[in-house]
Amino acid sequence: MKVVQGGVCAPQGFLAAGLHCGIKYKNKDLALIYSRVPGKACGVVTQNKVQAAPVKFTKKQLKNNLSQAIIVNSGNANCCTGRQGLADAAQICRHTAKELNISPQYILTASTGIIGKRLPVEKITAKLPLLAANLQRTGSLSAAQAIMTTDTVPKQIAVQFEAAGSPVKIGAIAKGSGMIAPHLATMLVFITTDAALDTADFKPALQEAVDNSFNLITVDGDTSTNDMVLALANGLAVSAPLQGADLQNFREALNFVCLSLARMLVKDAEGATKFIEIQVEEAKSIAQAKRVAFKIANSLLVKTAFFGENPNWGRIAAAIGAADKNINQEKIVIYLGREKVMEQGAAVTASPKRLNALCKKKDIFIKVILGIGNARATILTSDISYKYVQINAEY
Amino acid sequence: MKVVQGGVCAPQGFLAAGLHCGIKYKNKDLALIYSRVPGKACGVVTQNKVQAAPVKFTKKQLKNNLSQAIIVNSGNANCCTGRQGLADAAQICRHTAKELNISPQYILTASTGIIGKRLPVEKITAKLPLLAANLQRTGSLSAAQAIMTTDTVPKQIAVQFEAAGSPVKIGAIAKGSGMIAPHLATMLVFITTDAALDTADFKPALQEAVDNSFNLITVDGDTSTNDMVLALANGLAVSAPLQGADLQNFREALNFVCLSLARMLVKDAEGATKFIEIQVEEAKSIAQAKRVAFKIANSLLVKTAFFGENPNWGRIAAAIGAADKNINQEKIVIYLGREKVMEQGAAVTASPKRLNALCKKKDIFIKVILGIGNARATILTSDISYKYVQINAEY
Repeated sequence: MKVVQGGVCAPQGFLAAGLHCGIKYKNKDLALIYSRVPGKACGVVTQNKVQAAPVKFTKKQLKNNLSQAIIVNSGNANCCTGRQGLADAAQICRHTAKELNISPQYILTASTGIIGKRLPVEKITAKLPLLAANLQRTGSLSAAQAIMTTDTVPKQIAVQFEAAGSPVKIGAIAKGSGMIAPHLATMLVFITTDAALDTADFKPALQEAVDNSFNLITVDGDTSTNDMVLALANGLAVSAPLQGADLQNFREALNFVCLSLARMLVKDAEGATKFIEIQVEEAKSIAQAKRVAFKIANSLLVKTAFFGENPNWGRIAAAIGAADKNINQEKIVIYLGREKVMEQGAAVTASPKRLNALCKKKDIFIKVILGIGNARATILTSDISYKYVQINAEY
Repeated sequence: MKVVQGGVCAPQGFLAAGLHCGIKYKNKDLALIYSRVPGKACGVVTQNKVQAAPVKFTKKQLKNNLSQAIIVNSGNANCCTGRQGLADAAQICRHTAKELNISPQYILTASTGIIGKRLPVEKITAKLPLLAANLQRTGSLSAAQAIMTTDTVPKQIAVQFEAAGSPVKIGAIAKGSGMIAPHLATMLVFITTDAALDTADFKPALQEAVDNSFNLITVDGDTSTNDMVLALANGLAVSAPLQGADLQNFREALNFVCLSLARMLVKDAEGATKFIEIQVEEAKSIAQAKRVAFKIANSLLVKTAFFGENPNWGRIAAAIGAADKNINQEKIVIYLGREKVMEQGAAVTASPKRLNALCKKKDIFIKVILGIGNARATILTSDISYKYVQINAEY
C-alpha cells in the first residue's frame, strides 16, 4: 500500500468540484463528488438524536445501496428546519440528479454550518449547472475546500494497493475542526474507491474503520447533528467484489485512510496548539479503557494544563478516578512521555526539567496503566486554548 | 427563617480562625472551626475513585458520629501522596487535638490545592498554637478566606429559625471555583448548627440538601479528589433532637443554606461572566432531565456561545440530542429567557433583537421541554471565558 495523490478523485471514474454559491459571505461552500457509473454506497451517521434534514434524507437514500453522486454544502446545517428542511434537501438532490442526468435515487447529500436557519435552496440550485460543468479529475482539493467551516486547511488523502492483480485506490476528503468528538461530531468524510465490494463486506469494513479512527478522537466532547461518513465503491478498477486477502487489504487501506484523516482533524482542531495521544492499558474491558481515556481527553482541566505547558498530572489522576467506579487508586501508573509520574496511587519523583521539556513539545503522549485487566484503548485529542474560546464565542 | 450574620460562627458555641502558615506564598491557607462541646457530625465526600488522604482519613473519623473541630488547609491537596499522606493527615489531627485539649477522635480534616506534593506538615503544626489562640466568635470570615484557592470572594452564610420555642441557627462557609461539578468537585463546605439532631435524621437531611444544591451545579464537568461537605450539630440552642415540624424546618433551612452557597460557587466560577440556569421539563425521569440539563451545561460550545453573547440555540439542540437515546426531536421545545426559539424540532421565528438583548444579560435562563414525561430538573452553570483558560493554564 502506498499513499498517492488525487484525494477523492484518485480512484478511477471519480470527478469532483467545489465553488462559492453564496451561503457563506465568501469562500467555497458547495461541493459535488460524482462517479461515472453508479456504485455501492454505505454510510455511518451521527448518533445524535437531533438529526439534520440531510442526515435523515441520506439515511433513506442509502437503503438503495447504490449511489452515483454526493452534493454537499457548508455554511448552513439545514438542521432544526422541520419538514421544510427535508423538502429542501430533496429538492437539491432532484436538481442535482437532473443536472447530472442520473436517477434522483442515486444522490446523497450532506450539510454543515449554522443550525436553525432555512437552507438558501435557490443559491444552491442556481449554481448547480456551473458546479456540474466544473467536475474534473483534479477537483478533489476544490471539493475539500468547499466543505470547510472553521477548518484552517483542506483535508484529503488517497492510497493505492493491489487486488486481483490490479491497482486499486481509495480516496477521501474530510472536514472537521471544533466539536470533533466520538460518534461523528461535526465531521464530514467522503470516501471513494474503484474497488467493487459486496454490501455485506463494505458496511462492516466502513464501520470498523470509523470505530478505529473517527470514534477515537475528541476535541471538546460535543457531538453534532449533521455528521456522516459516506463511502462509494464504483468497481471500475476491479469489477468482481473483493474477497479473502484482497478484502483484507482493502480493510487495512480503509483503516489507514480513516486514521490518517482522524489525525488531520485533531491537528486542525479549533485553536489547538497540542496533539495529545492518550493510551490506557490494563483495563478490565475495552469499554472501560475508552471511558477512562475519553474522560482524560475531555477534561477541561487536563486540556488547559497542556495548553499552559504545565505538567499537572494530578488532573489526569482526578479524571481517571472520576471516569469509572471500578478503578483501584493503588494500582494506577501514569506516564507523561517516558517519565513515570505516579505509581501505586502516589507521586513518583520525576525530573521537573524533563517534565517541563515534555510539555513544551507539540505532541504529547500520556500512558495510563490501570493494573486491573488486559484491555487497552488509545484516544487522540487536542488542548483548549484562548483561540478555541474566541472561535466558538464568535461563530 | 431569616438570614443572619456570623457565618459558621452564628450558631452558639462555635469559634473559628484562619491564618497564613506558609503553604501558599501569601494569603491565608489554614483554617480551624471549633465547637465548645462535641457534636453530631456527618459528611458527604467526593465520588471520585482517586481520593485524597484527608478524605480517606475523615471518612474513618466520621464513623465516630461525634466531632468537635475541623482543621483545613488550602494550597496543597495531600492527594496521590500514598501512606505518607495518610500519616500526615493523622499527624495534623493529633496536633490539633492536643492544642485544643480534646480527643483526636473528634477532629475532622480537609485539604485543597495541588495534587501529588507532600503536605508541608511542619508549616502547619508550627502555626497550630497561634491558630487555636485566634479562635473567636467573629472568626468565620477569616476561616472562609483561609480555605480559598482560585475563589475571588470568601463565601459564607447563616440563617435562623424557631424550633421548640428557641432560635436555632445554621451557619456555613464554602470554597469552590473552577472544576465545580456535581458530586462535590473541588469544593469544600463546612456547616455548623446549634440544633441537636439524631444521626438517623442528620445524615439524610445533609444528603438531600447536597443533592438539591451542590450536586446540581457544574462549571467544567470535572470532578475532584478532595471535596467534602461536613456538618456539625452541637445542640447548644436546643438540646433535644429535632423532630416533626422542627426537623422539617431544619431541613428547609439546610436546603436554603446549601442552595445559597451553590449559587455563590457558580457565580464565582473561574473566569465566569454569565450565570446560567438550565431547566429541563417533561422528561421521562428525573435522571433523564438531569442528564439532558448537564449535557447542555457541560457543552463547551454552549458555554462559549453564551460567553460570546451569541443566541446560538442550535448548540443547545445538539446537546439535547447527544444526551439521551430516548429523545424525540419532534417534541423538543426550547426557550431562551421567555423567547421560544425551537418547537416540534424546528426553529421558531424569534425576535433577533430580543434574543440579542437576552444574551447580553448576566443571568441567562434556558428552558427545555422534552414532551415525553412529567419529570424535571434544574442545573446551574457558568460560561467559559478566556480567563478560565488562562487561570487553568497557569495554575
